[in-house]
Amino acid sequence: MTSNGTGPPFDPIREARRQWVAHGWEDAADGMAMVTSVVRAHQLLMERIEAELRPLDLTFARYEVLRLLSFSRAASMPMTRLGSLLQVHPTSVTSAVSRLVGQGYVERARGASDRRVVLAVLTPSGRDVVERATEALNARIFTAPGLPPDDVRALTAALTELRAGLGDAL
Amino acid sequence: MTSNGTGPPFDPIREARRQWVAHGWEDAADGMAMVTSVVRAHQLLMERIEAELRPLDLTFARYEVLRLLSFSRAASMPMTRLGSLLQVHPTSVTSAVSRLVGQGYVERARGASDRRVVLAVLTPSGRDVVERATEALNARIFTAPGLPPDDVRALTAALTELRAGLGDAL
Repeated sequence: MTSNGTGPPFDPIREARRQWVAHGWEDAADGMAMVTSVVRAHQLLMERIEAELRPLDLTFARYEVLRLLSFSRAASMPMTRLGSLLQVHPTSVTSAVSRLVGQGYVERARGASDRRVVLAVLTPSGRDVVERATEALNARIFTAPGLPPDDVRALTAALTELRAGLGDAL
Repeated sequence: MTSNGTGPPFDPIREARRQWVAHGWEDAADGMAMVTSVVRAHQLLMERIEAELRPLDLTFARYEVLRLLSFSRAASMPMTRLGSLLQVHPTSVTSAVSRLVGQGYVERARGASDRRVVLAVLTPSGRDVVERATEALNARIFTAPGLPPDDVRALTAALTELRAGLGDAL
């Protein structure tokens, strides 16, 4: 964010990589730069996404729950299935759904065939807010995510390799 | 994380992309997949990093503060400079530093030439813990971040393009 006025703008990640090499950690320098770049890209994207979702009083985590429910046939899904599709811990799903219940966007129900199963069910106002959120994200983030189309696909492919290397079964 | 047993393993991001196209949002589908892939890669990396840092009672955010201080000549830095190098909001720096002061890893001081400047200063135990954290991260994350070396560098280059496209001055 800072330029010294005499050369190219200053990149904190490039500087950190230089420090890593200077400290004798060459074999870890590229990995550090990659990890830190993922962290920074995530931060920049989340700032933009949450700015779009804030007027709707949604976070990206809650938006993802609503989105999955909106795609399911009965607009409902077992809590355990939500956790597995969102690849998050069950307590995170419980927390997001509780907040969505409080907002009137989701209701809890019991499975018809197995009463032990807890379902999250999208309400009509939940359907409405997830459509508005998707319109905003599509228009201002997903159609212009910061790279030209070919580079978007190449980056997704590289990140898919990384996810596989980190244990996602793809 | 789930395989249906009859085909390739199920990828929630690929399925979300399919849903986007099926809903007529083709022009946003690749961007959605890229953004969601960044979010998932970040989540997987953070799980690994925080597992390494938890025994040291550090988060990645607090580790980054200690790391920057350890690289600076006087092991100290104005709070505002920390925020600009870490590319985070001043309140995030204040919060991380307050916690590090409580842990005895950082002390607050006033600038020698300008008493209005608040400095964060690394303590000897802060120096010790950041060295141990770096050893752990270098050994178990940064030297094996989930991709072969050439792919690590290519992904960093692609993420650098993305950061520039999202507003980082690089």
